[in-house]
Amino acid sequence: MLESGPVVMITTASGGRANIMTQSWHTMIEFMPPLVGCVISDRNHSFGLLKSTRECVINIPTAEIAEKVVGCGDTSGATVDKFAKFGLTPQPAELIGAPLIEECYANLECRVTDTKMVSRYCLFVVEVIKAWIDPAVKDPRTLHHLGKGSFMVAGERIKLKSGMK
Amino acid sequence: MLESGPVVMITTASGGRANIMTQSWHTMIEFMPPLVGCVISDRNHSFGLLKSTRECVINIPTAEIAEKVVGCGDTSGATVDKFAKFGLTPQPAELIGAPLIEECYANLECRVTDTKMVSRYCLFVVEVIKAWIDPAVKDPRTLHHLGKGSFMVAGERIKLKSGMK
Repeated sequence: MLESGPVVMITTASGGRANIMTQSWHTMIEFMPPLVGCVISDRNHSFGLLKSTRECVINIPTAEIAEKVVGCGDTSGATVDKFAKFGLTPQPAELIGAPLIEECYANLECRVTDTKMVSRYCLFVVEVIKAWIDPAVKDPRTLHHLGKGSFMVAGERIKLKSGMK
Repeated sequence: MLESGPVVMITTASGGRANIMTQSWHTMIEFMPPLVGCVISDRNHSFGLLKSTRECVINIPTAEIAEKVVGCGDTSGATVDKFAKFGLTPQPAELIGAPLIEECYANLECRVTDTKMVSRYCLFVVEVIKAWIDPAVKDPRTLHHLGKGSFMVAGERIKLKSGMK
Protein backbone atom coordinates (compact mmCIF):
# COMPACT_ATOMS: atom_id res chain seq x y z
CA MET A 1 0.00 0.00 0.00
CA LEU A 2 2.74 2.45 0.90
CA GLU A 3 5.40 1.78 -1.67
CA SER A 4 3.33 2.80 -4.66
CA GLY A 5 5.41 5.85 -5.55
CA PRO A 6 6.75 5.73 -9.07
CA VAL A 7 8.90 2.73 -9.84
CA VAL A 8 12.36 4.02 -10.77
CA MET A 9 15.38 2.45 -12.43
CA ILE A 10 18.62 3.43 -10.74
CA THR A 11 21.75 3.31 -12.89
CA THR A 12 25.29 3.08 -11.54
CA ALA A 13 28.60 2.49 -13.30
CA SER A 14 32.16 1.54 -12.50
CA GLY A 15 35.12 0.45 -14.60
CA GLY A 16 33.27 0.93 -17.88
CA ARG A 17 30.38 -1.31 -16.83
CA ALA A 18 26.94 0.06 -16.01
CA ASN A 19 24.12 -1.52 -14.06
CA ILE A 20 20.38 -0.95 -13.62
CA MET A 21 18.27 -1.61 -10.53
CA THR A 22 14.48 -1.43 -10.37
CA GLN A 23 13.27 0.12 -7.15
CA SER A 24 10.29 1.69 -5.36
CA TRP A 25 11.65 2.52 -1.92
CA HIS A 26 12.49 6.20 -2.10
CA THR A 27 11.21 9.46 -0.65
CA MET A 28 11.75 13.16 -1.12
CA ILE A 29 13.56 14.53 1.95
CA GLU A 30 14.11 18.21 1.14
CA PHE A 31 13.20 20.68 -1.64
CA MET A 32 16.29 22.91 -1.36
CA PRO A 33 18.72 21.34 -1.95
CA PRO A 34 16.68 18.57 -3.62
CA LEU A 35 17.45 15.54 -1.47
CA VAL A 36 16.07 12.05 -1.98
CA GLY A 37 16.35 9.05 0.32
CA CYS A 38 16.83 5.72 -1.51
CA VAL A 39 16.81 2.31 0.15
CA ILE A 40 19.12 -0.02 -1.79
CA SER A 41 19.59 -3.39 -0.16
CA ASP A 42 23.10 -4.67 0.37
CA ARG A 43 21.93 -7.84 -1.36
CA ASN A 44 21.79 -5.87 -4.64
CA HIS A 45 24.73 -5.55 -7.01
CA SER A 46 24.04 -1.79 -7.21
CA PHE A 47 24.72 -1.37 -3.49
CA GLY A 48 28.51 -1.76 -3.88
CA LEU A 49 28.61 0.38 -7.02
CA LEU A 50 26.70 3.22 -5.38
CA LYS A 51 28.73 3.02 -2.19
CA SER A 52 32.07 3.19 -4.01
CA THR A 53 31.24 5.69 -6.79
CA ARG A 54 28.72 7.80 -4.81
CA GLU A 55 26.89 8.58 -8.07
CA CYS A 56 23.70 7.34 -9.69
CA VAL A 57 20.90 8.32 -12.04
CA ILE A 58 17.29 7.93 -10.97
CA ASN A 59 15.48 7.13 -14.22
CA ILE A 60 11.66 7.17 -14.29
CA PRO A 61 10.06 4.69 -16.71
CA THR A 62 6.49 4.48 -17.96
CA ALA A 63 4.14 1.58 -18.62
CA GLU A 64 5.30 1.36 -22.24
CA ILE A 65 8.45 -0.43 -21.03
CA ALA A 66 6.92 -2.29 -18.07
CA GLU A 67 8.37 -5.66 -19.08
CA LYS A 68 11.90 -4.25 -19.26
CA VAL A 69 11.38 -2.64 -15.84
CA VAL A 70 10.35 -5.96 -14.31
CA GLY A 71 13.13 -7.78 -16.13
CA CYS A 72 15.71 -5.44 -14.58
CA GLY A 73 14.12 -6.11 -11.18
CA ASP A 74 14.29 -9.87 -11.56
CA THR A 75 17.93 -10.15 -12.63
CA SER A 76 21.26 -9.30 -11.04
CA GLY A 77 23.92 -7.04 -12.49
CA ALA A 78 26.49 -9.43 -11.03
CA THR A 79 25.84 -11.79 -13.95
CA VAL A 80 23.76 -9.83 -16.52
CA ASP A 81 24.45 -6.74 -18.65
CA LYS A 82 20.93 -5.37 -18.31
CA PHE A 83 21.26 -2.69 -21.00
CA ALA A 84 22.12 -5.39 -23.55
CA LYS A 85 19.68 -8.03 -22.29
CA PHE A 86 16.64 -5.75 -22.16
CA GLY A 87 17.42 -3.51 -25.16
CA LEU A 88 17.84 -0.31 -23.16
CA THR A 89 20.03 2.51 -24.41
CA PRO A 90 22.64 4.15 -22.16
CA GLN A 91 23.26 7.85 -22.75
CA PRO A 92 26.09 9.76 -21.10
CA ALA A 93 25.09 11.91 -18.15
CA GLU A 94 26.43 15.45 -17.96
CA LEU A 95 27.87 15.59 -14.47
CA ILE A 96 28.44 12.00 -13.38
CA GLY A 97 29.74 8.68 -14.68
CA ALA A 98 26.53 6.62 -14.47
CA PRO A 99 24.45 6.61 -17.67
CA LEU A 100 20.93 7.88 -18.34
CA ILE A 101 18.41 5.37 -19.72
CA GLU A 102 17.16 6.90 -22.98
CA GLU A 103 13.83 5.01 -22.86
CA CYS A 104 12.84 6.72 -19.57
CA TYR A 105 10.90 10.00 -19.75
CA ALA A 106 12.86 11.61 -16.87
CA ASN A 107 16.40 11.18 -15.59
CA LEU A 108 17.83 12.66 -12.41
CA GLU A 109 21.61 12.78 -12.00
CA CYS A 110 22.45 12.36 -8.33
CA ARG A 111 25.40 12.44 -5.96
CA VAL A 112 25.38 10.67 -2.60
CA THR A 113 25.60 13.26 0.17
CA ASP A 114 25.09 11.17 3.33
CA THR A 115 25.84 7.51 4.05
CA LYS A 116 25.24 7.55 7.81
CA MET A 117 22.01 5.51 7.47
CA VAL A 118 23.53 2.95 5.09
CA SER A 119 24.88 0.45 7.59
CA ARG A 120 21.63 0.28 9.55
CA TYR A 121 18.95 0.78 6.87
CA CYS A 122 20.74 0.67 3.47
CA LEU A 123 19.34 4.21 3.10
CA PHE A 124 21.39 6.57 0.91
CA VAL A 125 20.71 10.31 0.89
CA VAL A 126 21.36 11.65 -2.61
CA GLU A 127 21.18 15.16 -4.04
CA VAL A 128 19.69 15.71 -7.49
CA ILE A 129 22.27 17.82 -9.33
CA LYS A 130 20.83 17.74 -12.86
CA ALA A 131 17.35 16.80 -14.12
CA TRP A 132 16.33 15.80 -17.64
CA ILE A 133 12.73 15.47 -18.75
CA ASP A 134 11.14 14.70 -22.11
CA PRO A 135 8.76 17.64 -22.69
CA ALA A 136 6.84 15.59 -25.27
CA VAL A 137 5.53 13.26 -22.54
CA LYS A 138 2.49 15.06 -21.13
CA ASP A 139 0.85 12.70 -18.65
CA PRO A 140 3.49 10.01 -18.09
CA ARG A 141 1.98 6.59 -17.40
CA THR A 142 4.30 5.90 -14.48
CA LEU A 143 4.32 2.50 -12.79
CA HIS A 144 3.49 2.07 -9.09
CA HIS A 145 4.31 -1.25 -7.50
CA LEU A 146 1.54 -2.85 -5.44
CA GLY A 147 3.58 -5.94 -4.57
CA LYS A 148 4.52 -9.25 -6.20
CA GLY A 149 4.51 -8.00 -9.80
CA SER A 150 1.21 -6.13 -9.60
CA PHE A 151 1.41 -2.51 -10.68
CA MET A 152 -0.94 0.43 -10.79
CA VAL A 153 -0.52 2.62 -13.86
CA ALA A 154 -0.90 6.37 -13.35
CA GLY A 155 -4.51 7.35 -13.98
CA GLU A 156 -6.42 10.59 -14.39
CA ARG A 157 -5.02 13.93 -13.21
CA ILE A 158 -7.06 16.24 -10.98
CA LYS A 159 -6.27 19.77 -9.84
CA LEU A 160 -7.47 21.10 -6.50
CA LYS A 161 -7.04 24.57 -5.10
CA SER A 162 -4.24 24.24 -2.60
CA GLY A 163 -1.34 26.04 -1.01
CA MET A 164 0.75 22.85 -1.08
CA LYS A 165 4.19 23.04 -2.66
CA MET B 1 7.93 13.39 -10.24
CA LEU B 2 9.33 11.41 -7.35
CA GLU B 3 6.89 12.11 -4.57
CA SER B 4 3.90 10.52 -6.24
CA GLY B 5 3.55 7.66 -3.78
CA PRO B 6 0.14 7.55 -2.11
CA VAL B 7 -0.82 10.69 -0.25
CA VAL B 8 -1.32 9.74 3.40
CA MET B 9 -2.93 11.46 6.37
CA ILE B 10 -0.90 11.06 9.54
CA THR B 11 -2.79 11.32 12.81
CA THR B 12 -1.24 12.11 16.17
CA ALA B 13 -2.77 12.90 19.55
CA SER B 14 -1.82 14.33 22.88
CA GLY B 15 -3.79 15.55 25.88
CA GLY B 16 -7.13 14.49 24.40
CA ARG B 17 -6.58 16.47 21.22
CA ALA B 18 -5.87 14.79 17.88
CA ASN B 19 -4.34 16.23 14.74
CA ILE B 20 -4.13 15.27 11.05
CA MET B 21 -1.30 16.01 8.62
CA THR B 22 -1.41 15.39 4.88
CA GLN B 23 1.87 14.08 3.57
CA SER B 24 3.60 12.37 0.64
CA TRP B 25 7.21 12.08 1.77
CA HIS B 26 7.52 8.53 3.01
CA THR B 27 9.24 5.32 1.98
CA MET B 28 9.25 1.68 2.97
CA ILE B 29 12.59 0.88 4.63
CA GLU B 30 12.26 -2.78 5.64
CA PHE B 31 9.72 -5.63 5.27
CA MET B 32 10.51 -7.44 8.54
CA PRO B 33 9.92 -5.68 10.82
CA PRO B 34 7.78 -3.37 8.64
CA LEU B 35 9.62 -0.05 8.89
CA VAL B 36 8.60 3.19 7.17
CA GLY B 37 10.55 6.44 6.93
CA CYS B 38 8.37 9.58 7.21
CA VAL B 39 9.62 13.12 6.69
CA ILE B 40 7.59 15.48 8.88
CA SER B 41 8.85 19.03 8.82
CA ASP B 42 9.50 20.77 12.12
CA ARG B 43 7.31 23.59 10.78
CA ASN B 44 4.29 21.26 11.14
CA HIS B 45 2.20 21.05 14.28
CA SER B 46 2.39 17.23 14.04
CA PHE B 47 6.17 17.28 14.42
CA GLY B 48 6.05 18.07 18.14
CA LEU B 49 3.18 15.64 18.77
CA LEU B 50 4.99 12.80 17.06
CA LYS B 51 8.29 13.59 18.75
CA SER B 52 6.75 13.59 22.23
CA THR B 53 4.23 10.73 21.93
CA ARG B 54 6.26 8.56 19.48
CA GLU B 55 2.97 7.24 18.06
CA CYS B 56 0.99 7.92 14.90
CA VAL B 57 -1.43 6.36 12.45
CA ILE B 58 -0.68 6.43 8.73
CA ASN B 59 -4.14 6.66 7.14
CA ILE B 60 -4.48 6.16 3.38
CA PRO B 61 -7.30 8.14 1.75
CA THR B 62 -8.82 7.79 -1.72
CA ALA B 63 -9.99 10.30 -4.31
CA GLU B 64 -13.53 10.25 -2.86
CA ILE B 65 -12.30 12.54 -0.04
CA ALA B 66 -9.69 14.51 -2.03
CA GLU B 67 -10.98 17.90 -0.87
CA LYS B 68 -10.73 16.92 2.79
CA VAL B 69 -7.19 15.63 2.17
CA VAL B 70 -6.14 18.94 0.64
CA GLY B 71 -7.95 20.88 3.36
CA CYS B 72 -5.94 19.05 6.02
CA GLY B 73 -2.77 19.88 4.09
CA ASP B 74 -3.58 23.57 3.86
CA THR B 75 -4.40 24.18 7.54
CA SER B 76 -2.48 23.90 10.79
CA GLY B 77 -3.45 21.84 13.80
CA ALA B 78 -2.10 24.64 15.95
CA THR B 79 -5.32 26.59 15.30
CA VAL B 80 -7.76 24.14 13.68
CA ASP B 81 -9.48 20.95 14.89
CA LYS B 82 -9.24 19.21 11.53
CA PHE B 83 -11.57 16.31 12.39
CA ALA B 84 -14.35 18.82 13.17
CA LYS B 85 -13.58 21.26 10.36
CA PHE B 86 -13.41 18.64 7.58
CA GLY B 87 -16.07 16.24 8.86
CA LEU B 88 -13.68 13.34 9.46
CA THR B 89 -14.44 10.65 12.05
CA PRO B 90 -11.83 9.60 14.62
CA GLN B 91 -11.92 5.97 15.71
CA PRO B 92 -9.85 4.59 18.56
CA ALA B 93 -6.75 2.66 17.55
CA GLU B 94 -6.05 -0.65 19.25
CA LEU B 95 -2.44 -0.25 20.36
CA ILE B 96 -1.77 3.48 20.44
CA GLY B 97 -3.34 6.77 21.47
CA ALA B 98 -3.62 8.45 18.06
CA PRO B 99 -6.94 7.87 16.27
CA LEU B 100 -7.73 6.12 12.99
CA ILE B 101 -9.58 8.15 10.35
CA GLU B 102 -12.71 6.15 9.56
CA GLU B 103 -13.06 7.62 6.04
CA CYS B 104 -9.67 6.16 4.96
CA TYR B 105 -9.63 2.67 3.42
CA ALA B 106 -6.44 1.65 5.27
CA ASN B 107 -4.95 2.63 8.63
CA LEU B 108 -1.51 1.67 9.93
CA GLU B 109 -0.83 2.05 13.65
CA CYS B 110 2.83 2.96 14.10
CA ARG B 111 5.42 3.47 16.82
CA VAL B 112 8.53 5.58 16.31
CA THR B 113 11.60 3.35 16.56
CA ASP B 114 14.43 5.69 15.55
CA THR B 115 14.78 9.47 15.82
CA LYS B 116 18.46 9.78 14.90
CA MET B 117 17.65 11.38 11.52
CA VAL B 118 15.09 13.80 12.96
CA SER B 119 17.37 16.71 13.81
CA ARG B 120 19.04 16.72 10.38
CA TYR B 121 16.25 15.61 8.02
CA CYS B 122 13.02 15.56 10.08
CA LEU B 123 12.97 11.85 9.13
CA PHE B 124 11.23 9.54 11.61
CA VAL B 125 11.59 5.76 11.33
CA VAL B 126 8.32 4.14 12.43
CA GLU B 127 7.31 0.50 12.76
CA VAL B 128 3.84 -0.59 11.66
CA ILE B 129 2.47 -2.57 14.61
CA LYS B 130 -1.14 -3.02 13.49
CA ALA B 131 -2.77 -2.65 10.06
CA TRP B 132 -6.45 -2.14 9.23
CA ILE B 133 -7.86 -2.38 5.74
CA ASP B 134 -11.39 -2.17 4.37
CA PRO B 135 -11.80 -5.41 2.40
CA ALA B 136 -14.74 -3.90 0.49
CA VAL B 137 -12.42 -1.48 -1.30
CA LYS B 138 -11.03 -3.46 -4.23
CA ASP B 139 -8.96 -1.06 -6.34
CA PRO B 140 -8.54 1.96 -4.07
CA ARG B 141 -8.36 5.24 -6.01
CA THR B 142 -5.36 6.50 -4.03
CA LEU B 143 -4.11 10.04 -4.55
CA HIS B 144 -0.57 10.77 -5.73
CA HIS B 145 0.68 14.34 -5.42
CA LEU B 146 2.33 15.79 -8.53
CA GLY B 147 2.97 19.18 -6.92
CA LYS B 148 1.02 22.38 -6.21
CA GLY B 149 -2.37 20.76 -5.75
CA SER B 150 -2.21 18.54 -8.84
CA PHE B 151 -2.83 14.88 -8.15
CA MET B 152 -2.77 11.69 -10.16
CA VAL B 153 -5.52 9.24 -9.23
CA ALA B 154 -4.60 5.55 -9.25
CA GLY B 155 -5.39 4.09 -12.65
CA GLU B 156 -5.54 0.61 -14.17
CA ARG B 157 -3.86 -2.38 -12.52
CA ILE B 158 -1.55 -4.65 -14.47
CA LYS B 159 0.05 -7.91 -13.41
CA LEU B 160 3.41 -9.01 -14.75
CA LYS B 161 5.25 -12.22 -14.07
CA SER B 162 7.91 -11.30 -11.58
CA GLY B 163 9.92 -12.57 -8.64
CA MET B 164 9.62 -9.17 -6.92
CA LYS B 165 8.34 -9.10 -3.34
